[in-house]
Amino acid sequence: MSLALDAAAQDLLFREARTANTFTEEPVSDEQVQAIYDLVKYGPTAFNQSPLRVTLVRTPEARKRLVKHMAEGNRPKTATAPLVAILSVDNEFHDELPKLLPHAPAVKDAFFAERPVREQAAAMNGALQAGYFIVGVRAAGLAAGPMTGFDFDGVQKEFLDDDHTPLMVVNIGKPGEDAWFPRSPRLDYDEVVTSV
Amino acid sequence: MSLALDAAAQDLLFREARTANTFTEEPVSDEQVQAIYDLVKYGPTAFNQSPLRVTLVRTPEARKRLVKHMAEGNRPKTATAPLVAILSVDNEFHDELPKLLPHAPAVKDAFFAERPVREQAAAMNGALQAGYFIVGVRAAGLAAGPMTGFDFDGVQKEFLDDDHTPLMVVNIGKPGEDAWFPRSPRLDYDEVVTSV
Repeated sequence: MSLALDAAAQDLLFREARTANTFTEEPVSDEQVQAIYDLVKYGPTAFNQSPLRVTLVRTPEARKRLVKHMAEGNRPKTATAPLVAILSVDNEFHDELPKLLPHAPAVKDAFFAERPVREQAAAMNGALQAGYFIVGVRAAGLAAGPMTGFDFDGVQKEFLDDDHTPLMVVNIGKPGEDAWFPRSPRLDYDEVVTSV
Repeated sequence: MSLALDAAAQDLLFREARTANTFTEEPVSDEQVQAIYDLVKYGPTAFNQSPLRVTLVRTPEARKRLVKHMAEGNRPKTATAPLVAILSVDNEFHDELPKLLPHAPAVKDAFFAERPVREQAAAMNGALQAGYFIVGVRAAGLAAGPMTGFDFDGVQKEFLDDDHTPLMVVNIGKPGEDAWFPRSPRLDYDEVVTSV
């Protein structure tokens, strides 16, 4: 069974794309990040809530502050990647709903009046958007190195505020030497997909 | 700034792809789902934990049991889509880690001995994989209709077990007549991406 997506795109986004642990020194520009966002912003979220936020760690001083919150094994690559992005979610995303969902103004108060509900929705929909973002980094011809091995409270206090929860940190750039391990096995179809 | 991904693929996956609310009667085969899985299984997760599970609702009897747990506005499309899939996460995913992460056997007990930690990791990484899955449905030339408007406890009790938590229900098929609303606005780049 063949897919509608051409083979080169399948390779670029999934089959040959890998999580990079080393990078070349080639910089990643704001224009590249903008092109990624302008593609993946179209990925669907519930009620178009779009809770994902991206903090680009651009200055050497900010990079140092981030590295100290990373798990030890993640520090060298976070220190040397051309660009590092903190992905977080905005738990007050409902403030943007009048703009994001203009045809259904009742949704904001009917569904998202309570903070715990917003936090749960933002966590799920933000992670969904993080999936689109990783695909988008690859669509730009770059490698992503997503990491959850860091001090979440530390990163939140250092870079965000009480309304924003970190999701992951992503190294971005062209893969360097020995950029990855051999690919680990995946589950078989029958281990993942069942029918009722 | 152009992307490495060709324009047709950009359109197929993001720019022209839309969440469908109506579908044609053209069936979606298990071979198509297999092709989707065989593409998106390569999307990265933390420690390759791969917690996403997919339940295809194939029989009319199972479809009826699902529809009764859906929010009222989601019932007609869930009743008529060619294929409906329940996406869930396996909170006992660590049982598969010896196979999924053969080079790092210590990870299972060092990181995932505690159920609450596994639940949190599965929720985030499963949603990330749901993002890849939606992209994969589109890569197959199909439209996805992801929904979180349903009784989560009801769907869990009806179709899953205590170790599996529902993430979303996804209608899958070729888009039908008046399949979607006009696209809602997205946030501007500067509203989402900041630099430090």
